[in-house]
Amino acid sequence: MSTPPRKPRQISGPKPIPLQWGAASAKARGPVIPFFNDPARNAIGGFVNGIQRAVAVAEGGLNPAYRANLHNTHPTFMFERSDRWKDIVSLDPFGHTVTEDFADLLKKGYRIQPTIGVTQAQLTIPEVQQAMADGTLKPDGKVLTWAGKIVVTKAYIDQVWHLPGVAKRLGVEEKHLRETLYKETGQYKDLIDRPDLDVFVPPIAGTSVYILGDPTKVGDPDVHHTVRIHDACHASDSWGSDICTCRPYFVYAALRCIESAQNGGIGILIYNHSTEGRAMGDVLKLLIYNARKRDPEGDTAERYFTHAENVAGIKDMRIYSLSTDPLLWLGVTRIHHLCSMSNYKFNALQQAGIEVIDRFEIPEEFIPADAQVEITAKKSDGYHTKAVPSDWELSATVGRSLTP
Amino acid sequence: MSTPPRKPRQISGPKPIPLQWGAASAKARGPVIPFFNDPARNAIGGFVNGIQRAVAVAEGGLNPAYRANLHNTHPTFMFERSDRWKDIVSLDPFGHTVTEDFADLLKKGYRIQPTIGVTQAQLTIPEVQQAMADGTLKPDGKVLTWAGKIVVTKAYIDQVWHLPGVAKRLGVEEKHLRETLYKETGQYKDLIDRPDLDVFVPPIAGTSVYILGDPTKVGDPDVHHTVRIHDACHASDSWGSDICTCRPYFVYAALRCIESAQNGGIGILIYNHSTEGRAMGDVLKLLIYNARKRDPEGDTAERYFTHAENVAGIKDMRIYSLSTDPLLWLGVTRIHHLCSMSNYKFNALQQAGIEVIDRFEIPEEFIPADAQVEITAKKSDGYHTKAVPSDWELSATVGRSLTP
Repeated sequence: MSTPPRKPRQISGPKPIPLQWGAASAKARGPVIPFFNDPARNAIGGFVNGIQRAVAVAEGGLNPAYRANLHNTHPTFMFERSDRWKDIVSLDPFGHTVTEDFADLLKKGYRIQPTIGVTQAQLTIPEVQQAMADGTLKPDGKVLTWAGKIVVTKAYIDQVWHLPGVAKRLGVEEKHLRETLYKETGQYKDLIDRPDLDVFVPPIAGTSVYILGDPTKVGDPDVHHTVRIHDACHASDSWGSDICTCRPYFVYAALRCIESAQNGGIGILIYNHSTEGRAMGDVLKLLIYNARKRDPEGDTAERYFTHAENVAGIKDMRIYSLSTDPLLWLGVTRIHHLCSMSNYKFNALQQAGIEVIDRFEIPEEFIPADAQVEITAKKSDGYHTKAVPSDWELSATVGRSLTP
Repeated sequence: MSTPPRKPRQISGPKPIPLQWGAASAKARGPVIPFFNDPARNAIGGFVNGIQRAVAVAEGGLNPAYRANLHNTHPTFMFERSDRWKDIVSLDPFGHTVTEDFADLLKKGYRIQPTIGVTQAQLTIPEVQQAMADGTLKPDGKVLTWAGKIVVTKAYIDQVWHLPGVAKRLGVEEKHLRETLYKETGQYKDLIDRPDLDVFVPPIAGTSVYILGDPTKVGDPDVHHTVRIHDACHASDSWGSDICTCRPYFVYAALRCIESAQNGGIGILIYNHSTEGRAMGDVLKLLIYNARKRDPEGDTAERYFTHAENVAGIKDMRIYSLSTDPLLWLGVTRIHHLCSMSNYKFNALQQAGIEVIDRFEIPEEFIPADAQVEITAKKSDGYHTKAVPSDWELSATVGRSLTP
């Protein structure tokens, strides 16, 4: 998807560097500079946490001209270019190597910041420690420490959109996408005023990636890869709200990833942050819960999606077609064990040309009682399962109602 | 903080309704309508998850004119007006009652949506179940079910800023705040073009509130209140990254909240979502980790904040002065047991006129080994503690370095 560079209009000061998205090297591609008011700006959008940053500037706590001191911040593991980087449309594949790729430009005062961070971490997940206590998991001192911590290589990836590529993924015209983004948000007027700028840094959260096993093996099609693409649901993920299967499915995937890594394979947990309430937001999510729980016919699997559509006008707002880019960035071409039943995620992987050998359902014992409504509705909607629910099951699967 | 209404400029179509922030009733205050392109718009900003919403519209999955069907979505518990509502500046205290307050306007086609959802939930937290197994917690079938689930009243609150009030809280001029928000983000030009619009819906995540115990008692100064204001840190909260005390402190607070509610009191867990990496964002957070871990002198408590300031130009970008508004909304005037050591949070509570009787440190056994650096640095920086670290402890408290 290499496109000919378009020359950005110059405002004043340091020269904007044209971006050649899809180029084989960072230098040929050019650095992404989305800072508003920066004369070298060559992208639309802005800095993540822009509002908090602006408040810190208004209060006098942050000098708006401060340039990040990037000494010693480089990745703990260097993910290298794969053939698939040219197909990426929603992140900057060179986002982790700006200090080495653009050392000269940084010296000249260009404001270039990493959009990907890579570090190491150790995770303590109580359910994993329980599995160790039960004897179903065994520590090896490497993937799983004797103290029960999971050793991971961890990345965080900001979203950076190449608008022509994103439009193509979504199956819409780029002009239509630009106009709709502007019309519906009322912001980012440059989307329509600056067709010379191809790249947009959207104001939405990015993706965490947790890698278990030897990161040098990531992407080797002959090495067993266990993968979950997980969409954040803080109420379940953090504090175990029992109305959905989010945390349980992630925990199941973490157990399978540990197993894979302990057997010489790789485990990859992709965690998308801009997906709360199927990307409809938390308030709508709670309103939908209430409408479900107050349905005179009960909170049935049959009417699970109807309630979402009534309240939000749509059952799901997640942008599945972009969710595979972190895997393209890692160079993953084959997933041996996909911990997901979602047909939407599976279709996105197919479209991205990532082979899926086997798909694993969440085991029955991981599903909270009140989450049966959700999982049964999803199975009926096309989720991968060996047990497609009957009409009778759809109407008979009923969740808790509101108390008192 | 009742201000005289300013008349919004009319564009065309349904008439914009002036907002009288701080008014005693929703009808007197008026509905907040931030939808861009809506002629009745009377606020700056937009819908949460605006980008995902726009993509859904561009793809044809969502009709942009769809009006939410709010039937049966009303709160499971009705939090009622308290004297403190007039002092709120960063949320809409009438955000949960739009269907009853503005039924006439909704019928006329005004596009008014709740900015607060209130429901019930049951939470499964493995550490709580462990405490039950240990016998340190006992189920009562009400606050803590026999199956070990925590029964909560749960709210999610979007941010809605009254700009004159927010400026006053921050201690800056409103004009300066508006100009800086626009200058630093490059968006929301209405902040400077429309001084007639006082209200801004910022594009940042809101706050979850979990209430344990009888919600009718919330705010009664004679009822024991245990409270934590927690700032989201997904890596620790969800998956137990062991470099900080975030999940452990929340779990400790949850245990204390259960205790309080079981003894006839109230537990309140406030969960702020726009605070990742001390509101500096996840990429900067990982870059700072690497700089700390690669410090030739080791990852010491002494240099903990120095690394943040080097990379980000500031050690903390959280907007503490707004963090007390959810408690004002609940009508809380006295906290008997505050589960927090943060001097910033404590000062914000003092400024908000919320009395704090006692503050509780996270117990030593809850602190992961590699998080000693963070907590020691914070104690030295002014965190409430019975054990202020010496200079020797500051330099001797050293975390893990990067491996290999």
